[in-house]
Amino acid sequence: MRSNKHTVVIVGYGGMGSYHGQLISENPNLEVAGTFDLLEGRRKASVEAGYKAYESYEEVLADPAVEVVLIATPNDVHKEIAVRALEAGKHVVCEKPVAMSSSEFKDMIAAADKAGRVLMVHQNRRWDEDFRIIKQMHESDTIGALFQIESRVHGANGIPGDWRHVKAQGGGMLLDWGVHLLDQLLFMIDSRVTSVSSTLSFILGNDVDDGFEAVLQFENGIKAIVEVGTTNFITLPRWYVKGLEGSAVIEDWSLTGRIVTRNRESEHREPTPIRAGVGLTKTMAPPSEGSTITAGLPPAAELPDGFYSNFVAVIEGTAEPIVKNAEVLRVQNLIEAIFAAAEKNEVIKDFDTYGV
Amino acid sequence: MRSNKHTVVIVGYGGMGSYHGQLISENPNLEVAGTFDLLEGRRKASVEAGYKAYESYEEVLADPAVEVVLIATPNDVHKEIAVRALEAGKHVVCEKPVAMSSSEFKDMIAAADKAGRVLMVHQNRRWDEDFRIIKQMHESDTIGALFQIESRVHGANGIPGDWRHVKAQGGGMLLDWGVHLLDQLLFMIDSRVTSVSSTLSFILGNDVDDGFEAVLQFENGIKAIVEVGTTNFITLPRWYVKGLEGSAVIEDWSLTGRIVTRNRESEHREPTPIRAGVGLTKTMAPPSEGSTITAGLPPAAELPDGFYSNFVAVIEGTAEPIVKNAEVLRVQNLIEAIFAAAEKNEVIKDFDTYGV
Repeated sequence: MRSNKHTVVIVGYGGMGSYHGQLISENPNLEVAGTFDLLEGRRKASVEAGYKAYESYEEVLADPAVEVVLIATPNDVHKEIAVRALEAGKHVVCEKPVAMSSSEFKDMIAAADKAGRVLMVHQNRRWDEDFRIIKQMHESDTIGALFQIESRVHGANGIPGDWRHVKAQGGGMLLDWGVHLLDQLLFMIDSRVTSVSSTLSFILGNDVDDGFEAVLQFENGIKAIVEVGTTNFITLPRWYVKGLEGSAVIEDWSLTGRIVTRNRESEHREPTPIRAGVGLTKTMAPPSEGSTITAGLPPAAELPDGFYSNFVAVIEGTAEPIVKNAEVLRVQNLIEAIFAAAEKNEVIKDFDTYGV
Repeated sequence: MRSNKHTVVIVGYGGMGSYHGQLISENPNLEVAGTFDLLEGRRKASVEAGYKAYESYEEVLADPAVEVVLIATPNDVHKEIAVRALEAGKHVVCEKPVAMSSSEFKDMIAAADKAGRVLMVHQNRRWDEDFRIIKQMHESDTIGALFQIESRVHGANGIPGDWRHVKAQGGGMLLDWGVHLLDQLLFMIDSRVTSVSSTLSFILGNDVDDGFEAVLQFENGIKAIVEVGTTNFITLPRWYVKGLEGSAVIEDWSLTGRIVTRNRESEHREPTPIRAGVGLTKTMAPPSEGSTITAGLPPAAELPDGFYSNFVAVIEGTAEPIVKNAEVLRVQNLIEAIFAAAEKNEVIKDFDTYGV
């Protein structure tokens, strides 16, 4: 451990802000220099946690000891806080979704470029083990080339009662969980999204979506279904994927799952028709005995570094960011296409900034 | 049992034809008078089963003892066989999908009307118990009003190697299993389909789809997802439905399933956040203990009669058909919209013949 740690001020000391405090404390090269929050209760919580509570954002920006601003506020103020930090010469880590629009995010990127400072978005779920297992399967054709990827997150608690259900603050599930699930897919699949269709759900009576489903078609032939629900008292699997040689499922965060593949060694035997409902079916009968192999999930693909240690390397100029702003911009752009697809009830094409 | 049974000739004595022989033998008012098939092997099988094998279709039509022609041939010849039977004064029961197009089916209906004979399509999966359980839930709001209905049939055996993989004969999964699943939905949900999007799957290299997914939006707010797959080595549940008060699942043909509903009696307690991947989530945490109730599936909705006894009542003029030709035509029209949606990769609207 070095004596000179990079100092971070956490702006917005709610649930995510305090979680970042914990993550930062686990990194030997970073330390929390303090926090800033508009709410008195949170300033108190900060002091109780041992972090100085700045009186104003101006005080944060004026403090030469502060190197990094971590933004964990509602989404509608990300841009202003980030741009001011960058202009003050600070590096910025920003919670997702990075901004209210790709236009806002472009302004943030421009400010970072102008200031010569780092702006990195906390797309931390690229490190989720369930995702990295699917990524491994995609990279190594564990069940043959994947051609259908279904990524679902289901809950039954509705959307949180805070700013997350307020449209003007960037609430709703597409911007919350959606940005993670879409970021994972675009990070994994190196191909242009050629079209997207979607539906948003407004069951809970908010002005923001309480869930959505999007169908993405990639130029390389992969079809992806991304779904978030908050009114699902029974959950469908977190991941369900199909490859040319088999299928795989990851049920939930516990990483319970399996892969089932064609047994190339077995003689081909026709399945025995089964009674299904009032009819007979051979097509939908279980494959004949011995014709498939069930196995456990492969190990997860590794990323070159963790989020915060990569961030340290980036600000020290020794590594490229794992979460690149061009990638984040592409996801933001995709989200806008998904909103447009749902609002117009149309298939949206020719929007992806892949390769740009 | 009456002494005068209605006599049926089965045209097309393959798997479905012989299955109909069995179904007809279970009805006290129907009897199989014989079969007609182009293939010598099937004529032999017919005779072995105790059924006269007619030498030609002309012989069937010329036989005044034959009252009913049952069509269980490939789809491309349904129309010709049906129209000739109707013109010869026979009643017709036809396998699904009834025709290659709604235009063909309209010709069949016109022939029935002109001849004053009955034409009924064997949409037998309206009687499937799994479907009727969902129908019951829809009618009695078991889990509150249903707003999302997902109906899936997954197999891993590919599509059958016979005419079912030949486009010119009406092969493919949308016309095979799809017609059943769509017929069930339109039979259950009394509302106009306002839009449909879909993708067809061609993984197996046939010129017909080996599966499809369609998203239907109904005017009353219900969203339905219908999916058939033949390359699914792991299956998703047969039915997954969401209501305003809970969710329900039917896993498979065994009718294993459950419903989980909100417990209105329990005090509202916030769920405890869980670690999910590399992050925390309260939104996606399991509902707090006691806040939901798990129960078994309700009993299945009853239909007024079975398919063949209803058919007997219809030809005797004592009942309306449970499977109405206007309903079958609507499903055929929906299938054409689904094909169009997939081919154009567009959301198709304003096509439904509901109420016409």
